[in-house]
Amino acid sequence: MINGESIINHPIRWAMIGGGKDSFIGYIHRSSALRDCSFNLSAGVFTRDIKKCRDFGVSIGVDPQRCYPDYKTMFAEESKRSDGIEAITIATPNNTHYEISKAALEAGLHVICEKPLCFKTEEAEELAALTREKKLIYGVTYGYSGFQMIQQARKMVASGDLGKIRLVNMQFAYGSFNTGSAEASNNFVKWRMDPAVSGPSFIIADVGTHTLFLSETIVPQLEIEKLLCVKQSFVETRQLEDNAYVLLQYKGGAAGMLWVSAVNSGSGHGQKIRIVGEKASIEWWDEHPNQLRYEIEGEPQRILDRGSKYLYPEAVEEDRIAGGHPEGLFESWSNLYRRYAVAIDAAARKDYEFLKNYWYPDVNAGARGIQFVNTCVKSADAGSIWVDY
Amino acid sequence: MINGESIINHPIRWAMIGGGKDSFIGYIHRSSALRDCSFNLSAGVFTRDIKKCRDFGVSIGVDPQRCYPDYKTMFAEESKRSDGIEAITIATPNNTHYEISKAALEAGLHVICEKPLCFKTEEAEELAALTREKKLIYGVTYGYSGFQMIQQARKMVASGDLGKIRLVNMQFAYGSFNTGSAEASNNFVKWRMDPAVSGPSFIIADVGTHTLFLSETIVPQLEIEKLLCVKQSFVETRQLEDNAYVLLQYKGGAAGMLWVSAVNSGSGHGQKIRIVGEKASIEWWDEHPNQLRYEIEGEPQRILDRGSKYLYPEAVEEDRIAGGHPEGLFESWSNLYRRYAVAIDAAARKDYEFLKNYWYPDVNAGARGIQFVNTCVKSADAGSIWVDY
Amino acid sequence: MINGESIINHPIRWAMIGGGKDSFIGYIHRSSALRDCSFNLSAGVFTRDIKKCRDFGVSIGVDPQRCYPDYKTMFAEESKRSDGIEAITIATPNNTHYEISKAALEAGLHVICEKPLCFKTEEAEELAALTREKKLIYGVTYGYSGFQMIQQARKMVASGDLGKIRLVNMQFAYGSFNTGSAEASNNFVKWRMDPAVSGPSFIIADVGTHTLFLSETIVPQLEIEKLLCVKQSFVETRQLEDNAYVLLQYKGGAAGMLWVSAVNSGSGHGQKIRIVGEKASIEWWDEHPNQLRYEIEGEPQRILDRGSKYLYPEAVEEDRIAGGHPEGLFESWSNLYRRYAVAIDAAARKDYEFLKNYWYPDVNAGARGIQFVNTCVKSADAGSIWVDY
Amino acid sequence: MINGESIINHPIRWAMIGGGKDSFIGYIHRSSALRDCSFNLSAGVFTRDIKKCRDFGVSIGVDPQRCYPDYKTMFAEESKRSDGIEAITIATPNNTHYEISKAALEAGLHVICEKPLCFKTEEAEELAALTREKKLIYGVTYGYSGFQMIQQARKMVASGDLGKIRLVNMQFAYGSFNTGSAEASNNFVKWRMDPAVSGPSFIIADVGTHTLFLSETIVPQLEIEKLLCVKQSFVETRQLEDNAYVLLQYKGGAAGMLWVSAVNSGSGHGQKIRIVGEKASIEWWDEHPNQLRYEIEGEPQRILDRGSKYLYPEAVEEDRIAGGHPEGLFESWSNLYRRYAVAIDAAARKDYEFLKNYWYPDVNAGARGIQFVNTCVKSADAGSIWVDY
Repeated sequence: MINGESIINHPIRWAMIGGGKDSFIGYIHRSSALRDCSFNLSAGVFTRDIKKCRDFGVSIGVDPQRCYPDYKTMFAEESKRSDGIEAITIATPNNTHYEISKAALEAGLHVICEKPLCFKTEEAEELAALTREKKLIYGVTYGYSGFQMIQQARKMVASGDLGKIRLVNMQFAYGSFNTGSAEASNNFVKWRMDPAVSGPSFIIADVGTHTLFLSETIVPQLEIEKLLCVKQSFVETRQLEDNAYVLLQYKGGAAGMLWVSAVNSGSGHGQKIRIVGEKASIEWWDEHPNQLRYEIEGEPQRILDRGSKYLYPEAVEEDRIAGGHPEGLFESWSNLYRRYAVAIDAAARKDYEFLKNYWYPDVNAGARGIQFVNTCVKSADAGSIWVDY
Repeated sequence: MINGESIINHPIRWAMIGGGKDSFIGYIHRSSALRDCSFNLSAGVFTRDIKKCRDFGVSIGVDPQRCYPDYKTMFAEESKRSDGIEAITIATPNNTHYEISKAALEAGLHVICEKPLCFKTEEAEELAALTREKKLIYGVTYGYSGFQMIQQARKMVASGDLGKIRLVNMQFAYGSFNTGSAEASNNFVKWRMDPAVSGPSFIIADVGTHTLFLSETIVPQLEIEKLLCVKQSFVETRQLEDNAYVLLQYKGGAAGMLWVSAVNSGSGHGQKIRIVGEKASIEWWDEHPNQLRYEIEGEPQRILDRGSKYLYPEAVEEDRIAGGHPEGLFESWSNLYRRYAVAIDAAARKDYEFLKNYWYPDVNAGARGIQFVNTCVKSADAGSIWVDY
Repeated sequence: MINGESIINHPIRWAMIGGGKDSFIGYIHRSSALRDCSFNLSAGVFTRDIKKCRDFGVSIGVDPQRCYPDYKTMFAEESKRSDGIEAITIATPNNTHYEISKAALEAGLHVICEKPLCFKTEEAEELAALTREKKLIYGVTYGYSGFQMIQQARKMVASGDLGKIRLVNMQFAYGSFNTGSAEASNNFVKWRMDPAVSGPSFIIADVGTHTLFLSETIVPQLEIEKLLCVKQSFVETRQLEDNAYVLLQYKGGAAGMLWVSAVNSGSGHGQKIRIVGEKASIEWWDEHPNQLRYEIEGEPQRILDRGSKYLYPEAVEEDRIAGGHPEGLFESWSNLYRRYAVAIDAAARKDYEFLKNYWYPDVNAGARGIQFVNTCVKSADAGSIWVDY
Repeated sequence: MINGESIINHPIRWAMIGGGKDSFIGYIHRSSALRDCSFNLSAGVFTRDIKKCRDFGVSIGVDPQRCYPDYKTMFAEESKRSDGIEAITIATPNNTHYEISKAALEAGLHVICEKPLCFKTEEAEELAALTREKKLIYGVTYGYSGFQMIQQARKMVASGDLGKIRLVNMQFAYGSFNTGSAEASNNFVKWRMDPAVSGPSFIIADVGTHTLFLSETIVPQLEIEKLLCVKQSFVETRQLEDNAYVLLQYKGGAAGMLWVSAVNSGSGHGQKIRIVGEKASIEWWDEHPNQLRYEIEGEPQRILDRGSKYLYPEAVEEDRIAGGHPEGLFESWSNLYRRYAVAIDAAARKDYEFLKNYWYPDVNAGARGIQFVNTCVKSADAGSIWVDY
């Protein structure tokens, strides 16, 4: 059970780029990193205006001298200090992730980055190679993958509870961008819809990669062989898709389907994943993350609950509060940051053996997301044909 | 509100072909037809063995003289009687539907038939033409379409409650045939898996056409432009598919998806339909048929309940019991048989004007199901490519 | 599995008193009795106006000569016929049940009666004694007790699946009479609120006895030792209570609670029962009657589904349609009428040994309901004190 | 929207008593207090062993010099420092709350205390009087009351959305102590069952007061006039009750019911509250805290979702993450600690006017809980009779 005590020897000296005042993404990064005393927020480029950057930094306890106007300055200045930063989090618009990531890795810093880490498959491979070469940790915040029940699901599949996996059905389909007024009134939405900032895809990239990563986490043995994507822009003014269906063919015969949407009117998040095996299925819904449906053919349906003793130890050990109590998205993120801390600490100690088997959403997971988005776009743009993976 | 009183002038003299002792499909046909005093069970070919046929007929109140060894004899003999049968129900294996239907229509009998009414598109068109020519009623038992909440959904879409329809997501995915032991131990299952009896498709034809018809009922304005189907036989000994995904492109831009499965381990029926409009969505699940989710974007989700006064009058009038009480599949079927009776009565009175606007699952709906199955098979067999409709 | 074939040698000649045109209670009685070919509707007093009575009788297939102006005439005339009626159903207002029941029993007729069978405990005992003396069958239509999952629950408790029973929590709490406009606009409601027609209690008698009987069916071993009732009339113009809480102390230490309400705003039926045992609990909700929650302490919660092979045979045998399909209230009632038919047939054959162990809601169950209502009223009227049972 | 920035001028210097290593209650206190940069953990008595106390303190960033062996020493030493503590949290066993609270208040410290703040009504009144006299803040951690949807519920009632309130139905009924093995193997459980440590009640005090406080928060206008309690110890070795029902009569005619249980086999938390008004009802379940059912009589049931724009501003402003995402118990607690910080800051500024209308679970709420428990015990011990409040 996690109880907020640091699990590493010294807290990691850490900085944020982006995620300043009024940024809810900034808040969840900070809250999660600081939850377990494993990171110290030592410096930051919270926003481009240095005055605002410092004001905000001070308000959350950062030394104003270590609030910087841009990331290059920060990397340069911090590298001169004996207590300089060791790791950074990137929470800036998508089109800046690649260059900041690259610069950070080159500066010898561990990186935690919002997805997508870049737009092009080659760039993703470059960052992955650089991470390997520098023997650094690069974490991607696939923030739903830290839920306890996802670990339970992963362990159930690995243990054969479902039998051979046949089907992976996924959806992340919400409704709040059902009309163009969403982007008209909200800059946060507007840049998501802008190819120059967001890349070649809106909804597949923005949410589909999250659910894809859940599937990779739960059923790591499945490899996509080919896929087919059909996408639409139901709001006509949009340059990028606001809805898509993707059919997946896995090596070895399993099949899958992903539905992503920003126009699923009336739906909250609508992120669900169902894994169907020869013997049983499991199903998880991110709006009620403390439950996992477990349906063995021929038996009554079961609802597994977070914090219960009948779960696999790998799931139970990530409890932060006794069973019955609900955990939420902050705990999922905190669990991920805890894993980033453990990984960074292992890397610092050069315990590469440990890292071989330690699960966290890493740069390869990020790179697979880029590949997925680009393959989907390629399929859809060619008339929704099957494209080899 | 329906209260079991006949709504037509005289009960229709009606016979069954198939559906004898121990047939649960026979039971639901009889129970539904007789529910409202609109049909009299006057004759029948309940099974091929004339002794058993008579024993069964007598046990359910049929004159033993009017229990026949085969449908040809029945049609011939009954045509000689002044009180001969007017309508028949066909509940025999799929590969006999076409010839019995054709013979019945040619004998001037109204027909109620289990789907599929045949296997080939040309045969379906032939039956449709014959029905029109003879000015007879041909009802297909898409048994889920008689639920009150389906009528409510249909009226909501027609009234614009959802705005322009964008997406139709469908599934009928159960788990009970997850292994080959299903057909090994059960003849009912075995013939479903046999192309000679069931035609070129198992699961798409057997259940997918049901959900397709729900979509046609709720959103009649949508016309399929093209579709793409990928299908699998996860149980390797099967000649027909036990799982499939179908992507649908409708004329005018709407899109759809259908998942059908017999290997969705642990799931009951798993028939669900979600209609997404510009403003709102509705969702219905056949295992809890008395509820309809209604989700207006930006408002709290609503759950509409059967029998409530806030429903459209077109739905309320099909109540058989006060709100709060659950209705089940038998009521859905009874509502359909009630509509067949009304239609047959109108045809008898030559009120063709009335029939123009009277909804019931008719021969054209049956023919569209055949077309759908054959187009899916064509797509899948050609490598899961898009096929024009 | 039930498939509509008669299970007795000859259909019982049966008449209805009350339940005429536009009566939904009349409809469910007729529909349920006739469902399995075990009753013939041979005569009736459908309404007091003999012209209307005959018109209605004819519309549902009754010989107009056997449509009578009152029950006394019917009993007298039918007794003269060799094919006279054997059993009656009473579906008239509550204040007539006692006298009609008594007259019917004295005329040697089996009785099926809407609850309450009378108002006074002594009257109930009198009817019970008369039933025993005449060796007749007296069925009370506790219409929710025929659901398959209630039989499953009963068998689970008997089999020890829950361990020793500790708690019985019950509620039947709907909202539709939350204001006085309910009775102002609806005669059906008005007589329910009138002590002269309904007796000393409205909501406890009208719905509470239903849930009480479910508890008696599921946990027959529990005997009430004492109870305490607090009741209210939230709509001030009402003479009878529209809400009540009852605390129950059972012999041997188990405890229980019942909440009944007609002012539970926004709720549908709201009939639920939860049985808590030392090891596990079960819970059932009449609006989703095809499911039964089964919660073993320390294990994942299970949802049992109607029609599943894992149920007890005693539950499975009452299937009318394959699992996955929903059954509704009509099936529950039909199952009860089927049991009344079996019991009447056994009584006709003088097979009293069989009847000793054959479960159906009988006159004693009806009498217990009267006792319960009167004890609740006594407690509440004395200041909501504990009253021995 | 809350985003982790401090909302007060300087962080409050704060210490913990109890809640050391491996204490999950300690973790949730620290995590919640530190969440918004409004408290600094400056000192503590984490456990009685000073060595362990210091080790733990250091591991979570506390100056070892300010880790103390007991609370008296801490109060004395800290009072000498210019940067001494201003507030404490008490997370020790129940039987120590009163004396520590009293000492803290007398030392001029603000107090945040686990409930119950004491065992006797007089002690509760004494602490309340002392808090008023010293013009300090005394917060009680009724940890479920900080959920956004509780604020929404409170505002809905205040706005008249439900009409006049008629009924308050409450339950907090879990199953995990269904056998004596719970206390046999777990010290945490054992002291809860021991009257010497826990006071005169186990389950009413331990969980019932939580739900009672939810009712007070949502419907503050209701005052209990009298109550009646029946309690049981189903596990026979227990000296304190493990199950109880309480009937409530409020002034003005409203009624209520509370069921508390530790033997509700198979249930998780089982904390639910339903408020029934003349026009509508609301219902909340703590295991799915992001939803609130809203049922207007005569309209479809609605499900309100956390983070939605249609909520009252008083609810929306407590968002920590965008709608659709689940929040959990940690956010509820953090919201409470945020309120304690605001209140303490206002008290420090002597802004008593502000405090008059600022809601948080205060010493009076704590005192009402004690009164409730003692009245329940009094009723039950006198034979479950009505007791004036």
